[in-house]
Amino acid sequence: MSKSEQVYETVVQAILKEEWRPGDKLPSVRCMGSRLGLHRLTVLKAYQRLQEDGWIEVRTKSGFYVCEKSEETKKPDIKSPIYKDDSVLYQMSRALIAPDLLPNRHLSGDVKQLLDLEPRLLGTYSSTAGDLHLRESLADYLLETSSFYVSADELLITSGAQQAIDLAARAFVKPGDHVLIERPTYGPAIEALQEQKATLHPVDFTENGYDMNQVEHLMRTYRPVLFYINPTFHNPTGFTLSACQRKELVELAEQHKCLLLEDDVCHDIYFDGPPPPPCFFYDTEGVVVYIRSFSKYISPGLRISVMMARGDRLAKLLRIKAMTDNGSPLFNQAVFRHIFFTDRMQGHIAKLRLAMQLRKVCMEQQLEGSGLTWISPKGGLNLWVKLPPDWAADMLIRHSLKASVSFLPGAICDPWDSSTPYIRLSYSYLNEKQLAEGMKRLLQAGKMLQP
Amino acid sequence: MSKSEQVYETVVQAILKEEWRPGDKLPSVRCMGSRLGLHRLTVLKAYQRLQEDGWIEVRTKSGFYVCEKSEETKKPDIKSPIYKDDSVLYQMSRALIAPDLLPNRHLSGDVKQLLDLEPRLLGTYSSTAGDLHLRESLADYLLETSSFYVSADELLITSGAQQAIDLAARAFVKPGDHVLIERPTYGPAIEALQEQKATLHPVDFTENGYDMNQVEHLMRTYRPVLFYINPTFHNPTGFTLSACQRKELVELAEQHKCLLLEDDVCHDIYFDGPPPPPCFFYDTEGVVVYIRSFSKYISPGLRISVMMARGDRLAKLLRIKAMTDNGSPLFNQAVFRHIFFTDRMQGHIAKLRLAMQLRKVCMEQQLEGSGLTWISPKGGLNLWVKLPPDWAADMLIRHSLKASVSFLPGAICDPWDSSTPYIRLSYSYLNEKQLAEGMKRLLQAGKMLQP
Repeated sequence: MSKSEQVYETVVQAILKEEWRPGDKLPSVRCMGSRLGLHRLTVLKAYQRLQEDGWIEVRTKSGFYVCEKSEETKKPDIKSPIYKDDSVLYQMSRALIAPDLLPNRHLSGDVKQLLDLEPRLLGTYSSTAGDLHLRESLADYLLETSSFYVSADELLITSGAQQAIDLAARAFVKPGDHVLIERPTYGPAIEALQEQKATLHPVDFTENGYDMNQVEHLMRTYRPVLFYINPTFHNPTGFTLSACQRKELVELAEQHKCLLLEDDVCHDIYFDGPPPPPCFFYDTEGVVVYIRSFSKYISPGLRISVMMARGDRLAKLLRIKAMTDNGSPLFNQAVFRHIFFTDRMQGHIAKLRLAMQLRKVCMEQQLEGSGLTWISPKGGLNLWVKLPPDWAADMLIRHSLKASVSFLPGAICDPWDSSTPYIRLSYSYLNEKQLAEGMKRLLQAGKMLQP
Repeated sequence: MSKSEQVYETVVQAILKEEWRPGDKLPSVRCMGSRLGLHRLTVLKAYQRLQEDGWIEVRTKSGFYVCEKSEETKKPDIKSPIYKDDSVLYQMSRALIAPDLLPNRHLSGDVKQLLDLEPRLLGTYSSTAGDLHLRESLADYLLETSSFYVSADELLITSGAQQAIDLAARAFVKPGDHVLIERPTYGPAIEALQEQKATLHPVDFTENGYDMNQVEHLMRTYRPVLFYINPTFHNPTGFTLSACQRKELVELAEQHKCLLLEDDVCHDIYFDGPPPPPCFFYDTEGVVVYIRSFSKYISPGLRISVMMARGDRLAKLLRIKAMTDNGSPLFNQAVFRHIFFTDRMQGHIAKLRLAMQLRKVCMEQQLEGSGLTWISPKGGLNLWVKLPPDWAADMLIRHSLKASVSFLPGAICDPWDSSTPYIRLSYSYLNEKQLAEGMKRLLQAGKMLQP
């Protein structure tokens, strides 16, 4: 956090803990500055942000005051960075794997070895598509592990799945185009598609997958250019589309010439057995663009994902990738190539699966008998939990943040229903002891909402 | 190169060397495949690309033929990847610093040390704006070296300057907006602005800088939202805008509310003394967004650049950056932070300046008396060279490629004049011996064009 962000947080925490109540006057900028030993411009910047975010208000010639809006009606901005705030002790808002579960020490050793083997690496650019050795190794790996027939020429290395989604949105979606998207879904994908001025049509994703009649109806009616899907350990629900529906979806997409943008970021984090093959596997006409990310569970510090596309789809992606960053940094690609295709790494992934499953079970144990309901996922990093009728998600987040617990309100994943009773709880970032304490605090916060 | 690219290159080389002449029939896909030991789909893919690029044509039920267009009229695609082709021996098309001039061995040692100090680095995400420690160190460095008053909150770390240009184009330019751009300029900047559907107006950049009357007229007439400038060791010309014109430009921009997007990628590569302060230095109203890149001369394998913007401009950039890749990889930022702010690195930069100047002088010696003219730059990586009247750039590139010499035809930097007599020769990628041989071959190729 920068100094100005620290001031922001200090004030927010004081308001949440009710040390400062609505209508209270804040210390002047100058006074706060000397109290914290900071320049007054730093404090002013924080106060301005607090004002923008609706925490405080300015009264001319008088100073800054905590907003009068009663706490019960004030809705926090669900996009506020507080969900990513490192000062929250029990973070269940982050679908990230705790850094201490990643094989960092081993990775460091491997990086050192690589630098001895390839001393000019830091001085060399990548091609736009990415390091050819890495692409060839990935093509071999995918053939071996998933029976994918894909050549290095059909792969594009990206800096994380987020970049891949953005590239596809820019390459394939024009203003006014119709686009299908799962409901609920990954929030930033909505943003990337809206940035292209697409008209979005939600497709419900339930425990039983899609209603294929709905999909067909939407494809027939709107002729969408693209359908963004996350069929494997779906974020946020954890649901997985059956092999049967995958085939059916690919056929529909081929028939209606609708590109399927398949996002697969937790493929290896399964609990009972591997998931069905990706839709890309069933595609014979180049209608699927597939994103496979390793960033979350191998090395978030490197941000390596790979996109697969056939024919002129790849050419279009490459044009945008060249514009975006001229190719992902070579160093990261070489490190990934050096560390990923080893038995040790495959052993790490197996251990990680187990650790994630244990954490999931731990979270579920805490939820038992709480009145909250969920469907146990077969992989991934999240539970999609339905709150009891009298627990409003936006009130719950305010109370739980007071107890230093964060989660993702469902409305971020389902903007079509701002009062959705769902929340997303990630079990991947906290260890079992922390999870138990965090869940206890969350449920206590919830009980305070009951009449 | 992938296998399919190898086939492509084999055929192009054979055509350039006139082993295969216009009208000649190529070996069938099957035959070529078995000759080269490749799958016929690989060959087919190469043939298809050759056809798209106008090298060969298909005659139904007969096969593939070298295009009939006479060599003298066929214009090669100036965006063809052949300019980046590693198989060309004398590459003067690349404004890159040769990897062996970068302090790779030392860097490797530093990276190893860093991994011992911060073992969880590979497992950790960056924030969207970038590593706070790096931003704070950069703010201090800029204050110390350039008297910049900029805070860490006003900095955004990007993956190279290319990404910074793209972010700014997306954040600040809407379809139909008017935008000013130098002529000539950096080709990919044109593409990024055109991608936003901007209407571009060229501003001539000469040895004497801009015609400020032209700038004022354009600002008054079109109310442009943005002016993309590269005032320091400008690519491709090498020209530098005077301090006086910088001040004047900032004033004009403030007056007309036109954002100046200032690209500064070779700031430290000066020959006679440091360049004037960036326009950003003269800006008091937040009208300049400044891109400072270290990627080219510290570590192209890391791709670290930094963008500076005030107030809500930075917020807009952060929104796009989050969509683009959620923040540049942390590992790269940490490595850069660990290696850059050291005396040894400053010593490296001083040596690099000298090496670049020696290479520039070497290239200029070869050009003496050749009939080609240029203005000697005071920094940067390129000469902007005017060809004699009977040397057409598009013919010269064909002949020079036969001699394994590449350069950048001026039309890539000046699309407003497709028959511009200028070419860009980069002296940064070859050593002095290679430069002497490359220039000899280039001048020989040119002489073949004379009547």
